Amino acid sequence: MDYTSFLTSLGTSFFIFVVLMLLFTWLSRKPGNSFVYYPNRILKGLDPWEGGSRSRNPCAWIREALSSSEQDVINMSGVDAAVYFVFLSTALAILVLSGLVLLPVLLPVAATDDNVEIQKVKGNSSTSFSEIDKLLMGNVKGGSPRLWAFLIATYWVSLVTYFLSWKAYVHVSGLRANALMSPELKPEQFAVLVRDIPHVPEGQTRKEQVDSYFKSIYPETFYRSMVVTNNKQVNKIYKELEGYKKKHAHAEAVYNESKKTGKPEGLRPTIRTGPLGIVGRKVDSIEHYNEKIKELIQKLEAEQKVTLREKQQPCAFAFFTNRVTAASAAQSLHAQMVDTWTVMEAPEPRQIIWSNLKIKLFQRIIRQYVVCFIAALTILFYMIPIGFISALTTLDNLKKLLPFLKPIVNIVSVKTVLEAYLPQIALIVFLALLPKLLLALSKAEGIPSVGHAVRATSGKYFYFTILNVFIGVTLGGTLFETFKSIEKEPNSIVSLLASSLPGNATFFLTFVALKFFVGYGLELSRIVPLIIFHLKKKYLCKTEAELKEAWFPGDFGYATRIPGDMLVLTIVLCYSVIAPLIIPFGVVYFGLGWLVLRNQALKVYAPSYETNGRMWPHIHTRVIAALILYQVTMFGYFGVKKFSFSTLLLVPLPIVSLLFAFVCQKKFYRSFSDTALEVACRELKEIPNMERIYRSFIPPSLSSEKADDDHFEDALSQVSRVGSFA
Amino acid sequence: MDYTSFLTSLGTSFFIFVVLMLLFTWLSRKPGNSFVYYPNRILKGLDPWEGGSRSRNPCAWIREALSSSEQDVINMSGVDAAVYFVFLSTALAILVLSGLVLLPVLLPVAATDDNVEIQKVKGNSSTSFSEIDKLLMGNVKGGSPRLWAFLIATYWVSLVTYFLSWKAYVHVSGLRANALMSPELKPEQFAVLVRDIPHVPEGQTRKEQVDSYFKSIYPETFYRSMVVTNNKQVNKIYKELEGYKKKHAHAEAVYNESKKTGKPEGLRPTIRTGPLGIVGRKVDSIEHYNEKIKELIQKLEAEQKVTLREKQQPCAFAFFTNRVTAASAAQSLHAQMVDTWTVMEAPEPRQIIWSNLKIKLFQRIIRQYVVCFIAALTILFYMIPIGFISALTTLDNLKKLLPFLKPIVNIVSVKTVLEAYLPQIALIVFLALLPKLLLALSKAEGIPSVGHAVRATSGKYFYFTILNVFIGVTLGGTLFETFKSIEKEPNSIVSLLASSLPGNATFFLTFVALKFFVGYGLELSRIVPLIIFHLKKKYLCKTEAELKEAWFPGDFGYATRIPGDMLVLTIVLCYSVIAPLIIPFGVVYFGLGWLVLRNQALKVYAPSYETNGRMWPHIHTRVIAALILYQVTMFGYFGVKKFSFSTLLLVPLPIVSLLFAFVCQKKFYRSFSDTALEVACRELKEIPNMERIYRSFIPPSLSSEKADDDHFEDALSQVSRVGSFA
Repeated sequence: MDYTSFLTSLGTSFFIFVVLMLLFTWLSRKPGNSFVYYPNRILKGLDPWEGGSRSRNPCAWIREALSSSEQDVINMSGVDAAVYFVFLSTALAILVLSGLVLLPVLLPVAATDDNVEIQKVKGNSSTSFSEIDKLLMGNVKGGSPRLWAFLIATYWVSLVTYFLSWKAYVHVSGLRANALMSPELKPEQFAVLVRDIPHVPEGQTRKEQVDSYFKSIYPETFYRSMVVTNNKQVNKIYKELEGYKKKHAHAEAVYNESKKTGKPEGLRPTIRTGPLGIVGRKVDSIEHYNEKIKELIQKLEAEQKVTLREKQQPCAFAFFTNRVTAASAAQSLHAQMVDTWTVMEAPEPRQIIWSNLKIKLFQRIIRQYVVCFIAALTILFYMIPIGFISALTTLDNLKKLLPFLKPIVNIVSVKTVLEAYLPQIALIVFLALLPKLLLALSKAEGIPSVGHAVRATSGKYFYFTILNVFIGVTLGGTLFETFKSIEKEPNSIVSLLASSLPGNATFFLTFVALKFFVGYGLELSRIVPLIIFHLKKKYLCKTEAELKEAWFPGDFGYATRIPGDMLVLTIVLCYSVIAPLIIPFGVVYFGLGWLVLRNQALKVYAPSYETNGRMWPHIHTRVIAALILYQVTMFGYFGVKKFSFSTLLLVPLPIVSLLFAFVCQKKFYRSFSDTALEVACRELKEIPNMERIYRSFIPPSLSSEKADDDHFEDALSQVSRVGSFA
Repeated sequence: MDYTSFLTSLGTSFFIFVVLMLLFTWLSRKPGNSFVYYPNRILKGLDPWEGGSRSRNPCAWIREALSSSEQDVINMSGVDAAVYFVFLSTALAILVLSGLVLLPVLLPVAATDDNVEIQKVKGNSSTSFSEIDKLLMGNVKGGSPRLWAFLIATYWVSLVTYFLSWKAYVHVSGLRANALMSPELKPEQFAVLVRDIPHVPEGQTRKEQVDSYFKSIYPETFYRSMVVTNNKQVNKIYKELEGYKKKHAHAEAVYNESKKTGKPEGLRPTIRTGPLGIVGRKVDSIEHYNEKIKELIQKLEAEQKVTLREKQQPCAFAFFTNRVTAASAAQSLHAQMVDTWTVMEAPEPRQIIWSNLKIKLFQRIIRQYVVCFIAALTILFYMIPIGFISALTTLDNLKKLLPFLKPIVNIVSVKTVLEAYLPQIALIVFLALLPKLLLALSKAEGIPSVGHAVRATSGKYFYFTILNVFIGVTLGGTLFETFKSIEKEPNSIVSLLASSLPGNATFFLTFVALKFFVGYGLELSRIVPLIIFHLKKKYLCKTEAELKEAWFPGDFGYATRIPGDMLVLTIVLCYSVIAPLIIPFGVVYFGLGWLVLRNQALKVYAPSYETNGRMWPHIHTRVIAALILYQVTMFGYFGVKKFSFSTLLLVPLPIVSLLFAFVCQKKFYRSFSDTALEVACRELKEIPNMERIYRSFIPPSLSSEKADDDHFEDALSQVSRVGSFA
């Protein structure tokens, strides 16, 4: 890619971004769009335009984002969002501090040397060099004392990263502690999840077994237990019932509307009872649905009883009357045989993956290894197509492979745009396919909560992006060029390898720019959700519930968002010294990201679960992993630059990074995986209503339709009440 | 070593054993020796000769040992001893079950082949073969189908080991659970050790800080705390005081004796006050010691006050009113910063290593790595001298190096004995030097209890013995022979390697025989302690206390005993298929060991601490490690035997062993490192006297001389009582 196409790419990206931002300013002020641009505020019962959001100033949202505090974010989007912003601002600070030193020092040092021209004159290299290449480390002659500046720069970036990530860890640890010690009542803090319960002894029910076990260990603080049931069947009926209820409401709405528009007595909607509603007898929809609902309610009640009585599984939730006991129980070994009665923190009721709870310890371990193996295969085999795509989607190759494109492609403007974007778009499309697969894999591990599964997915996706996008593209490009040059001059491989990293620098510059301008532009303007919402509103939604479903915002999607950011951070770190020009791009990425996502956190996304910052240790580990990759890369690159003795000075860096990661892990990690008792022992605002806490764990498909509150507990504790609560 | 010297060695060993056993029968019946042969019974207040021990039958002790139950061992020597017997009987059972199949099958299969003779005729080998070699796997021709029998035997031994070690783990886990749930009061079950306490906040004492911290987390079950102090100075004074008290009692006894023997008014003993009691003024001993004692008591009291007030350290014991809370607290994270307020199970008061308690978390980690590094160096560098010794102490080499020995050595009988024992004695002497060093190293890791330090030492010593004795001797012998043969025929290296294992078989046969006949003979007859006791009794001891000190038996010394047994087990396992003849030797070793040590456990040794079987997971892991070493060795040996395709059938074995170890670790390990709550929640025999529990943790140097019981607590809680117990 030459200089012109690089500038074109930048220019186009920026233009798209400006257009999207103006669109956002214009659209977000329309009252009809408030559901798209302020759903989180609406869900929280706040006025969407409070605080002057509706001004004509296109930068009003920026002012609001900047003036919002961390507490605002926690109130609107939870601790996880706040932790994510700590990550963004830490990455931003690392890059700003690095850039402040690296840009003014390294750019002049590189620009005043002339390695590139010498190589050109010698004809030693077959790639074409541009003005950008003059600013890269590649322009410094091998063995030159100027390399000392680059060596010191390598250390500076590492030190800045250590310092800021340590500070961030301390800060996030405090955020988590505050969240856990909050006087608000959180049901999951009073419960533990008990898995791997052994066989029920003769003459006892499952509930008696669990109750008597915990009663004997915690005679004073144990409240009661709730045996988990196999809800597959009951969920199916419940879902069907809810579907018919929606359809019923829809039909009612259609009927009411027809009263207004057509005849005053209205036109009762009809459907056919056959498959797909196309064939079969024509019946009145509302009555048909009413019948179905009645039928299903009876079926549901019968199934609920069967489920509660006969489909109990070897896992349960145990409830305690105070937080310290629950936190302590979750960390303690209960049974002499470690693979029975495993106790862990209860996840939030809304993020429990019910079907995974029953899986036994050794099966979980086996599943973990199997999933790990499959994930590794996936990560490795995706590399091959990506390597091909990165090699094939250059314009020259396309022209050769698809000759009919030649006339179009030869137009200058089309050619420039295509040349700038083609490989990147191919890459981005390719990346969109994987996350669902990885999430499904992670859930198959037997993880009990959605938050945990998302963390596991995020980890796999991180390895995937680093290995395939960063390393894959770099090596893929190199391999391709290497093959070409070996044909001509077999001796130039080393110098080609040395120049392959800077060669890919412009690719990654464009990649990052595309990601922030177009990615964040789309994120902010929400064009796609807007169109979908308006289409649905016009043609499909008749009831309030349907409308809410249409605009309901979803959450941040950390599983892919964080690996995406980590990829950019890794790229920018790895190129920071080789091509310092990338740093401003990184700064814009994280700065713009912080602004745009702050806006989204405050106004758009509604988190569907809360893990109190358990994502952080993973983020931190990966920042350090990126740093180590950078340090190792630099070690290799200095070696290629024939700076051999001083290259040894880089050896301590990865070791220090590993030590740093070890110390952080020892000092902080356990307080993220467990709840510290000094945190759990804080006073609550009010005396907890244990019955409400207990009920919050009952899945909706099992909670009774009628006001009959005793339904659930009766079915479960028919016999037990006498036995275990005596 | 040829056949004759092997038989001589066996014969001599057996003769020594018979002599020692007869000595034991004769000596142990003398009443004056009861302190040497029955100290544990005397300490427990039992009659030494209860149950007919004094009969003339030399095998009476065997009958007693066989008829004793596991509960007897637990009562007399604690759970640790019982667990050790589980190990001995498991090893015995593994070898018996292996031998029952291997001996009748493999010996005929090997004996009817003729590889040895063919090699001899060919002159392919320079070593001399004997009758024993005809019974080894080496006598089977390479690639012969007879090797299938050996392959199946390899599997059989592995399966037997899996089955029996699994059963043993289940059994020991039950033993530990029983010990922990016993209704007897054990003070350490009510306490936790708190380390890494942060700086004392302004205006608080250390005790207030600890009390208020735990009071807020455990408002109902926290009893009180005890801050650990730096006792170095006070211990020194206490020791000096105790020394003078002993001397005083001794002088009194001498004076009283002189009244009987000499003049009726007696002769008051005198000493000189100068250094070593040789120079200086002559004074009356009793008066002098009296003065010193008075002086030191005052000094001790002053120092006690200073220690309790000013030498408090950032660690403490916290006491709880029930066992469940203590067990649960020891497993829970208390502080958000994981490196502060680390809480762990309290060791027994008698095995606390006080000086290690104050060491901070990160320092402990660093110490651990440093010690690990030093231990690795020690293990590796000890190998070199051992290799030399094993090569040099053959008779031929000795004659060359020390020519003046030639005339003595050439006498036939001396020659045979020397040839049989020389290398083994050198080895045994060499091994006796290390354990103290390793124990000191382990203590330097910052481990808080003696039991734990002994476990760590045992691990290091295990690696040492396996690497240096087993692998070192085998390779050392091979290397030496290899060098010789390379000079002559460079092509015979491979066949030499193949025959090096069986070549060392006779060495290890003798080694094991020496260990059990002479080792257990000495163990049973207690010749050395007997002589020392009688010498001390005659010439040094004047008081009851001095006498008790002279016969006090000490404990099992697991740090070296278990690695020693593990070495034998490893050797026997590794040679079990190559040289099945070794199995009976292993059976006798563990059988005789079980008998002799059963006797010692019931009558002699008094355990100085109790870990409730925490040694077991380490033993189990090492049994599996020995098994894996055996499987890998067999893989290599089958390869040498040109049994190539079928050799691949051995590949699954080490993998299965690793899986087995992993499953055992997951299923059992945590219940050994922590106390399961279902075990801790059992009812006690009586309501615990918390004050007595608390006092049992006060070190003797700090507990007051006078009846003033409030001394210790006053000094510690002068201010705190008002503040934290309000």
